[in-house]
Amino acid sequence: MSARDESREFAEGVGGRLNAPKSERYRRSVLDVEGRANRYVARYMLGSDLAYVLTATELGLTPPDDGRVLLRCLLDLLGDLDQLLAGGTALDIGVQREVWVLERVPKAVAARLHIGRNRGESVRNYLPRMFFRDALWRQYEATRELVAVLVAKAEPVLETVIPVYHHLQHAGMTTLGESLLSWASNFYAYLERLREADRRIDIAPPVMTSRRESVAIGEAVQRRLGFSRSAPLRQQMHVTEDQFAEPFFALLMVAVGIARLAEDLRIYMTSEFAFFELADRNASGSSHLPQKKNPFGLQAIIGSAAVGVGRLAAQLTMNISPSEELESVFQAASLYEQADDIIANTWFMAEIIEGGRFDTAEMGRKSGLGFAGAPTALDMLMFDADVPMRVAHHELGNSVRRLIAGDDVPDLAATIGAQLGRPVAIDTADVLDVLRGDRVPDFALNLPAVHSTFARLKADLAALAPRPNPVTSVLDALTAEAEAVLGSKETA
Amino acid sequence: MSARDESREFAEGVGGRLNAPKSERYRRSVLDVEGRANRYVARYMLGSDLAYVLTATELGLTPPDDGRVLLRCLLDLLGDLDQLLAGGTALDIGVQREVWVLERVPKAVAARLHIGRNRGESVRNYLPRMFFRDALWRQYEATRELVAVLVAKAEPVLETVIPVYHHLQHAGMTTLGESLLSWASNFYAYLERLREADRRIDIAPPVMTSRRESVAIGEAVQRRLGFSRSAPLRQQMHVTEDQFAEPFFALLMVAVGIARLAEDLRIYMTSEFAFFELADRNASGSSHLPQKKNPFGLQAIIGSAAVGVGRLAAQLTMNISPSEELESVFQAASLYEQADDIIANTWFMAEIIEGGRFDTAEMGRKSGLGFAGAPTALDMLMFDADVPMRVAHHELGNSVRRLIAGDDVPDLAATIGAQLGRPVAIDTADVLDVLRGDRVPDFALNLPAVHSTFARLKADLAALAPRPNPVTSVLDALTAEAEAVLGSKETA
Amino acid sequence: MSARDESREFAEGVGGRLNAPKSERYRRSVLDVEGRANRYVARYMLGSDLAYVLTATELGLTPPDDGRVLLRCLLDLLGDLDQLLAGGTALDIGVQREVWVLERVPKAVAARLHIGRNRGESVRNYLPRMFFRDALWRQYEATRELVAVLVAKAEPVLETVIPVYHHLQHAGMTTLGESLLSWASNFYAYLERLREADRRIDIAPPVMTSRRESVAIGEAVQRRLGFSRSAPLRQQMHVTEDQFAEPFFALLMVAVGIARLAEDLRIYMTSEFAFFELADRNASGSSHLPQKKNPFGLQAIIGSAAVGVGRLAAQLTMNISPSEELESVFQAASLYEQADDIIANTWFMAEIIEGGRFDTAEMGRKSGLGFAGAPTALDMLMFDADVPMRVAHHELGNSVRRLIAGDDVPDLAATIGAQLGRPVAIDTADVLDVLRGDRVPDFALNLPAVHSTFARLKADLAALAPRPNPVTSVLDALTAEAEAVLGSKETA
Amino acid sequence: MSARDESREFAEGVGGRLNAPKSERYRRSVLDVEGRANRYVARYMLGSDLAYVLTATELGLTPPDDGRVLLRCLLDLLGDLDQLLAGGTALDIGVQREVWVLERVPKAVAARLHIGRNRGESVRNYLPRMFFRDALWRQYEATRELVAVLVAKAEPVLETVIPVYHHLQHAGMTTLGESLLSWASNFYAYLERLREADRRIDIAPPVMTSRRESVAIGEAVQRRLGFSRSAPLRQQMHVTEDQFAEPFFALLMVAVGIARLAEDLRIYMTSEFAFFELADRNASGSSHLPQKKNPFGLQAIIGSAAVGVGRLAAQLTMNISPSEELESVFQAASLYEQADDIIANTWFMAEIIEGGRFDTAEMGRKSGLGFAGAPTALDMLMFDADVPMRVAHHELGNSVRRLIAGDDVPDLAATIGAQLGRPVAIDTADVLDVLRGDRVPDFALNLPAVHSTFARLKADLAALAPRPNPVTSVLDALTAEAEAVLGSKETA
Repeated sequence: MSARDESREFAEGVGGRLNAPKSERYRRSVLDVEGRANRYVARYMLGSDLAYVLTATELGLTPPDDGRVLLRCLLDLLGDLDQLLAGGTALDIGVQREVWVLERVPKAVAARLHIGRNRGESVRNYLPRMFFRDALWRQYEATRELVAVLVAKAEPVLETVIPVYHHLQHAGMTTLGESLLSWASNFYAYLERLREADRRIDIAPPVMTSRRESVAIGEAVQRRLGFSRSAPLRQQMHVTEDQFAEPFFALLMVAVGIARLAEDLRIYMTSEFAFFELADRNASGSSHLPQKKNPFGLQAIIGSAAVGVGRLAAQLTMNISPSEELESVFQAASLYEQADDIIANTWFMAEIIEGGRFDTAEMGRKSGLGFAGAPTALDMLMFDADVPMRVAHHELGNSVRRLIAGDDVPDLAATIGAQLGRPVAIDTADVLDVLRGDRVPDFALNLPAVHSTFARLKADLAALAPRPNPVTSVLDALTAEAEAVLGSKETA
Repeated sequence: MSARDESREFAEGVGGRLNAPKSERYRRSVLDVEGRANRYVARYMLGSDLAYVLTATELGLTPPDDGRVLLRCLLDLLGDLDQLLAGGTALDIGVQREVWVLERVPKAVAARLHIGRNRGESVRNYLPRMFFRDALWRQYEATRELVAVLVAKAEPVLETVIPVYHHLQHAGMTTLGESLLSWASNFYAYLERLREADRRIDIAPPVMTSRRESVAIGEAVQRRLGFSRSAPLRQQMHVTEDQFAEPFFALLMVAVGIARLAEDLRIYMTSEFAFFELADRNASGSSHLPQKKNPFGLQAIIGSAAVGVGRLAAQLTMNISPSEELESVFQAASLYEQADDIIANTWFMAEIIEGGRFDTAEMGRKSGLGFAGAPTALDMLMFDADVPMRVAHHELGNSVRRLIAGDDVPDLAATIGAQLGRPVAIDTADVLDVLRGDRVPDFALNLPAVHSTFARLKADLAALAPRPNPVTSVLDALTAEAEAVLGSKETA
Repeated sequence: MSARDESREFAEGVGGRLNAPKSERYRRSVLDVEGRANRYVARYMLGSDLAYVLTATELGLTPPDDGRVLLRCLLDLLGDLDQLLAGGTALDIGVQREVWVLERVPKAVAARLHIGRNRGESVRNYLPRMFFRDALWRQYEATRELVAVLVAKAEPVLETVIPVYHHLQHAGMTTLGESLLSWASNFYAYLERLREADRRIDIAPPVMTSRRESVAIGEAVQRRLGFSRSAPLRQQMHVTEDQFAEPFFALLMVAVGIARLAEDLRIYMTSEFAFFELADRNASGSSHLPQKKNPFGLQAIIGSAAVGVGRLAAQLTMNISPSEELESVFQAASLYEQADDIIANTWFMAEIIEGGRFDTAEMGRKSGLGFAGAPTALDMLMFDADVPMRVAHHELGNSVRRLIAGDDVPDLAATIGAQLGRPVAIDTADVLDVLRGDRVPDFALNLPAVHSTFARLKADLAALAPRPNPVTSVLDALTAEAEAVLGSKETA
Repeated sequence: MSARDESREFAEGVGGRLNAPKSERYRRSVLDVEGRANRYVARYMLGSDLAYVLTATELGLTPPDDGRVLLRCLLDLLGDLDQLLAGGTALDIGVQREVWVLERVPKAVAARLHIGRNRGESVRNYLPRMFFRDALWRQYEATRELVAVLVAKAEPVLETVIPVYHHLQHAGMTTLGESLLSWASNFYAYLERLREADRRIDIAPPVMTSRRESVAIGEAVQRRLGFSRSAPLRQQMHVTEDQFAEPFFALLMVAVGIARLAEDLRIYMTSEFAFFELADRNASGSSHLPQKKNPFGLQAIIGSAAVGVGRLAAQLTMNISPSEELESVFQAASLYEQADDIIANTWFMAEIIEGGRFDTAEMGRKSGLGFAGAPTALDMLMFDADVPMRVAHHELGNSVRRLIAGDDVPDLAATIGAQLGRPVAIDTADVLDVLRGDRVPDFALNLPAVHSTFARLKADLAALAPRPNPVTSVLDALTAEAEAVLGSKETA
């Protein structure tokens, strides 16, 4: 048996409770699948190992020399991690890193790595919580950038008139600024959800026994890993699995939001609309059709949101199971992958908006299509001539139908007056001008709100306090602490 | 044409922009489906009508007499609503309630009902927001009750030893109190999410034009309908549809949580476990097998969560669409139905826990199965005899395997001592006693944390401030205001 | 206690294994939810009751007079069914119909209704199988109609040139006929899937014991209910639940297909494309914007598919459970509702296509946008001038970029010739004409295939054998058989 | 610029229609994501390249020497493929393999690789169809093996009595053979669905123009890639995307089925049931709890099915989009990954069943729990004593309740006789014996059907004709053909 196989069998416990190595089919179905997550969580596993070894050594539970050997080894592994992962891993991270350690330090020392905790504590709690705290922080930064780009893009076009659609039918007019700031406003509110999701998973797993040593380890590790609270009861670790579901939902809401924006842009990019053009660096050619400029990036964003939705459903489905099960962990890689994609897509969407070109001339030209001024004309009849809403609505609708058919439109003052039994002050020609979009009264737009929202968003963005990444800062501190422990000895 | 058909065609706008009544297939595919939601939102539609009519009358935009006729009609419709709905509705609520009004007041007055707003404002904003604000409030109450029941059930069994499972294998011991309080603790944290979801949808839709009249109407209606803010920009109404997704997610997290609890109870109810018995009023017989006492209620809770997960996925899928689309609204009935089911199931789960019987004797008897004391024995070797973790783990695992096979277990002091090359102070007999669960050291349990958590939860529950329902209180106030307007006139 | 409550408690078995009526919360969470399915399956339940009573009487297991009383009662209930359902049902169908029977016949006779079967046999097997066999048949008819409408609509426009898009960018030209027949061809293949799904659920549940009487009942009932096979082993009833999943998938594939078509039409209906107009009877106005003609029907079709996808996911999720569970049944109503909606939407889509107007002039005008002739020009360079594909592609792409920018396009013969180091026979002006869509060579279209496919589809449709509905024909036969039994007695 | 970057920019078409290389964010969001699929489809891409080059050379469209250079290169790439993929690919496969070719052959020759097709033809049609035809074949083989293992496992236990559960409550008795053969019977029927799914995707994409050359290429390539038909119309390639959805559904049905089996086994593995033990090579230890033997494999199977369900939902969601979109392709890697996992899990489940141990003694001991003989007793009352079903059911249920409570059970003959007003021949003691499971009449089991089903399944399995893999056999033939072309030249 090779040294590597021997390490692996030792780490997997062959000869303990079980007396046979895993079958190939087991490896394929269980370890290969779970091991896919290693690229996302190995760093956190080694980080928490640092926290445990520092703590156990400090408490005198691990001999100082053994502790130093383990710390040195863990720091080295962290340095080599990208390379180790590139070589492929096909073990769950708990066993995998034990194998890595066994290959570098004596077995008797390696045997002290795994003190005071169980697998569930790591793979079901510390690791996903650290992954998602990092991911939520990154998503926060990306979302903030997207909002900032939208606000900057809106600034020169706050009053530039463009069409607005309901059900993809012309429904009136807006400005490009109002449209972009609407996205910015709604996305800005997502920052709060991301912070709340982080706060809810900022809770360390409980200690598994009430032995003095375990409690002391648990408290110190919680602090070292940057968690502000811990669960007091042991079954809290199992009875719900919100740490997988809620942060992913918070990310997914952004994914759905930017996919919705991508759906709009995709239509705006048609030759028929011709409202938006991607920067060349964000577009694709066609391998076959020489003339194409393809919005593959928009499609990737849309598809990613769809896959994310399916993955959230799968996550919630797995959470409906007996409370001590672990399906979530075996399948975590695809969850982490989707989370990473969502963050990347948010940055990408910010770049798309920043680099893309809105053809405001074309948007302006088409803003009156489809008798887009009709709601404004309706307001005129209702508020200036006191025509009951449904009467005004009916007559204007009828006029539109006649205009489309090429029929004469009867004088509105006469028709409506007859209907109401009183004279009404309606200038039909002016109403039809408005109806056709040839005249756009000020009140049809919403300019004061657009300007004030722009100012408020800019101020809000500027006022956002910088937030340090709660995970990378902890990993940095752990590395520094370990180096200090090793250094103090070496200088001693 | 019948009067009803005539009202319907008028309300549907035949003769305006369109010149034909809907086809039967259209009615089946569009109106029947959308109309399924009426039972959930008709009350809010009429409530917002009250708000609009009160406001428009107050502002002088609707003549006082017309306003009073409309208010009287709306109050009557609210009184007759259950009966109207029982008769079936197959129109979207906007048209449906216009038909109801047309059947009761002169057309010229009815024509003033619909001032200053569009369909999207109602069906995509005010109505779902009111539905979900009410639903979140009801879910909050149900969740609080569930937590209270769990805490009460835990009180007499805080120290009652029961098994704990990982992956459905015996993994140590806990107490029934710790287990029940774990559920309570985790569910208690859900209250915060429900409140946050409400805060995020507590935002009224924007006003559609910046005409003075529209703005005045919009502000007064927002206040009358109990919303603390409104969206300043018009496209904010469309560019995201979080009002459908996030509150449902907040409800669904509870659904998934109680389904997980139901999964545990379903296993506990087997003859083989025999840990839990449903009260007869919460159980089912079998129509064929006379001896059965079936956990249909648990299955209903589990299945409802699964359907809810699929419905959330569908909702998010629909939100990935061009921003001005309305799929969410056409399909809203099934969303509202699932939301209602989740709330009902939470109340039901509270009743199940309250009325069910845990067989603590049986739980105690089985708590030592599967060598459940092994983790405790491991702690003893690690912390009392300084045996490196992986060595201790290996030897104990080996001992368990031998005990199961009926083989002799070698003396642990000797085996481990030889391995470590130093004498170790291990009382093998005592370790095996612990291993088998014959002796349970205090530290294997977590009693101090159990007691303190119990006390804290009780105090937290007692300190929860009562929260008025933000929707029913508004509807009551609107009714009272309308009655006052009508009364003042009548007395005048 | 009222007579109705007494019947209900008797039917629910109070006083048997259980000794308390259901609680209100139980009724709300379990029975209300399951009872929602009654409108879809009550007819099949009564139909299978007819089959059982006819069989048990024929075999001498139920006394003839009791049998006749039951048959009369069942026929009456079938006649009154719509009315009974309109009154609301809040019991599962097994108990509900027992209550209905108890209200009409003496208890001693009613007690013989439920011979030789269990609830699972009905609610998990016969009923969903009958529902879906009927639904698959109806979906088959609707799909066939949709294909026929598409083929008919294609006939006059087989050679009418329109744009084709990839990624919503112009990608060449097709004909409206080719496009419509593509839908028809792909949907035609769905008929096979529907038939296969029916064949796979055409299997009766197993008999629960091997008693002679049970076997005899089982065989006769299977035959009477129109099933061609039965499962020989009893656990086959439980270990998979494909009867819920696969037929719904077969329906859903049509739902997704027509939603995809609706997505296209929705874009075609914009003012910017202006390719398609709904018939007025299939369109909606706006309650607020007088000028709108809204594609609510398309949105309803799209949203229904999304909800159907979520419901399929929920179904499969529920099927991942211990094999004897019944979640599928408690939640069946929403599955049946979606199935019905899909069938209705298919009929509706057929009407939309039939009544809608394609603006072929506008489609033709826009068919050359976006340098849609580029792939044709590419073929010319590759096949007529032997230019290696990637070279030709590069140069044409470059030309398009220059044309858009307003730059000069260098002579292609010169540029490419220089690059290949040999003269190439390229008429640049002609290539650019083709590129711009000003000339459309025949081979750019696909007319022979369009014509032959049209002919084949027409022939295939005409050759489709009529298929009787396998469920309604069985119900009719059972009713007739029961009437005959009753009649023979009455005449005797 | 490095040679690799230059190749990449050339392959990506920089300088053609677009004039800038992709941005980093584009690469991350689009190419990294799409490139994840390369490990699943690169072999098919190169295989179809072989087919195209062989065809174009044969037709004289590519010069023979160029053709030979390309063939040699493609064969070499196929040989090096695992190594190329291990190095990582971050381009879509169309560009990636063009880069690979550009690195090995002169640009002028490489430029001829891509004749007569577009990207959609490959990535949306040939590649997924080849992937899934291979996957369906492999799933067929795995499913057949699983059925064979179940049948073999059943053989010695056809008559071994075990409990049967409904809703996890004892519901009677079955034999282990009947149970295992039920799984085998239902899974056997899945083979048909797999074959049908293959037949439905065995259709080559249409030719994109009706030029003689294109048609000739298309027909030869279709034949060379092993497809029996091709789509005549060009939009058939787009208007539905069943090639992604239906084969995955066919695989997923197996995934759900084996997950359901895993759910049963997971409960059977508890200490409380103690019905089933995994082979050590298929089980896991715990990294912390020394005594554990964990069913991680079962959990992996269950979780994989859940993720697969979510992925199917995502797929269908993506199919609801404008018909020319490509979301499916960008996200294909996760679909292919899940498909592969399902096949692996099916093989793994076969190993689990084969290596696992059913504790038939324990199953037998527990088969009478929960008054499992009650349905048998019911049959006796109904059929031997002509007691109306509901009366018999009620009295037996009442007896069970009394027995559980420790109360006396009244004589059934007396009670029922009084109720019916006639003497009934009931031996109460015998009925109670049966009720308690102390006596099990033959008819309570289903032995004749068990034996005949066993014989039939064995015969059916033996009669299954071997089916060659439709994809690997094609790839082998293409390689051989290319080698022959090259060899004929070399020997010449």
